[in-house]
Amino acid sequence: MGRLGVDLYPLQAGVPLDRVERFGKFLGGSAANVAVAAARLGMGTALVSRTGADPFGAYLRRELDSFGVDARWVTEVAADPTPLTFCEIFPPDDFPLYFYRQPKAPDLEIHPHELDLAEIRAAKVFWMTGTGLCAQPSRDATLAALAARSRRAHTVFDLDWRVQCWNGSDDPGPVYATALGHATVAIGNLEECEIATGTREPGEAARRLLAAGVELAVVKRGPEGVLAVHRDGTVAEVPPLPVKVLNGLGAGDAFGGALCHGLVSGLALEPAIRRANAAGALVTTRLECSSAMPYAHEIDGLLATGGTS
Amino acid sequence: MGRLGVDLYPLQAGVPLDRVERFGKFLGGSAANVAVAAARLGMGTALVSRTGADPFGAYLRRELDSFGVDARWVTEVAADPTPLTFCEIFPPDDFPLYFYRQPKAPDLEIHPHELDLAEIRAAKVFWMTGTGLCAQPSRDATLAALAARSRRAHTVFDLDWRVQCWNGSDDPGPVYATALGHATVAIGNLEECEIATGTREPGEAARRLLAAGVELAVVKRGPEGVLAVHRDGTVAEVPPLPVKVLNGLGAGDAFGGALCHGLVSGLALEPAIRRANAAGALVTTRLECSSAMPYAHEIDGLLATGGTS
Repeated sequence: MGRLGVDLYPLQAGVPLDRVERFGKFLGGSAANVAVAAARLGMGTALVSRTGADPFGAYLRRELDSFGVDARWVTEVAADPTPLTFCEIFPPDDFPLYFYRQPKAPDLEIHPHELDLAEIRAAKVFWMTGTGLCAQPSRDATLAALAARSRRAHTVFDLDWRVQCWNGSDDPGPVYATALGHATVAIGNLEECEIATGTREPGEAARRLLAAGVELAVVKRGPEGVLAVHRDGTVAEVPPLPVKVLNGLGAGDAFGGALCHGLVSGLALEPAIRRANAAGALVTTRLECSSAMPYAHEIDGLLATGGTS
Repeated sequence: MGRLGVDLYPLQAGVPLDRVERFGKFLGGSAANVAVAAARLGMGTALVSRTGADPFGAYLRRELDSFGVDARWVTEVAADPTPLTFCEIFPPDDFPLYFYRQPKAPDLEIHPHELDLAEIRAAKVFWMTGTGLCAQPSRDATLAALAARSRRAHTVFDLDWRVQCWNGSDDPGPVYATALGHATVAIGNLEECEIATGTREPGEAARRLLAAGVELAVVKRGPEGVLAVHRDGTVAEVPPLPVKVLNGLGAGDAFGGALCHGLVSGLALEPAIRRANAAGALVTTRLECSSAMPYAHEIDGLLATGGTS
């Protein structure tokens, strides 16, 4: 449940946006990418989101369908155009984003009364994102969906923080705390952990996420790899794989989709994180995001070789 | 003076927007296109407009420069992104546009105090558009620029009407009437003439435009050709040229740039309209807009052959 939009990505890497001449059109948005990543691994997935009532919205619904993601809960908003995201691709670590989500993105117009709470409750995994909490009515809708889960495993809070989406005077702390109280898994990078917990020290951030209510805290430390801490005391630390990064965008979403697959498959913590980490690494080697989400045999292959530099 | 933005155009014709996979990036916006069209014919031109403080704004300034249009009065607005326009290309006559100009386009943030009124007064042609009248502060700025001209020849009001840019409750009639009182030339298609004069009957629309204050009324009747009526009684009626239309967008802007050239060159009314008409026809045979604006020898060539079908 969350962001959905059109990514207009340069068809060249290393070229600043003002010099890019040709753009490719792709399905994008963090929640949508996670759904595609999970579908690529064989999971039955659906997305709860909204688009504009325009050709780009029609494209996104069709594209979700072609990726095997059920789009029946992706509805149209008459007033707002489908959001766009442009990026710049400067490997290995600089990928600025430019959002066209003004005055309001349709995915923030999800109303609580529109939710199919029975389906949300029944899902083996429910995934929501911090950006869905940034504005009404999607804040109330996201919290209503979380409440309907009754802390059923696996209820995942992607701490996903996009400063551009928040009103500067709006403190995300309280609503992040409420959401953490409903979730069983929290996942975020260091910046996102700092928004949610007040610290970017990985071990302390994990402790605070567990104290806030989740069973599993996953801290993505970038070049330092991933730290995952379970309430039962299990800890997994997984280093980054040595791959040649082309475009880092979408890696976190690939990680998320693969983590969902690992949780539902009943994998132990370390192999689940290791596979998620490999899924993220594979996407960084590719220009695209949604369409670049890896298949299981690709994850197997990367883990077998230990990465290629 | 007026609209400036990035056109993201399909690199294929006949494909609906939801099916387009690749987009090209071009300089766009009606006023900007007119400036480019005039520059292609050898005129010294400058644009008064604004962009976002972003890479697309940097691109537009550089592109104007490369087309020979002085961009010194194209400044940045910190709060709003550079506008985008998508189109669909269904020849011969259906070219829907999709604007990303929310919550406000930077070209509507032109303030009266920022204008270089001495330069505006000194120009041999000043061109402004109806869309510049749709919101403040650009409405006051556009009227201030018109007032500074003191009805000096040639002061052109492009009736340019984009319903998407107007607040539904805002009647354009009074401000269009004020602008017509400052202009020496009015130019528009039938829909635009109806907004400005209350009628879409070409002869009556021309009479009302003259009665509102201009010296020359130019009514673009689409497949019926162009009607131009001067206050001195001269009338020119020019039929469309038989060309194979690929993309009709930008034709009006090519017409406008060539009309400016004809007026400043002292051409008689009929040849001036005939050359403008040919410039518009040439652009319709090309996929692009700004970069497709014709050179004088291309206009000569089309007029010599009478068009190619």
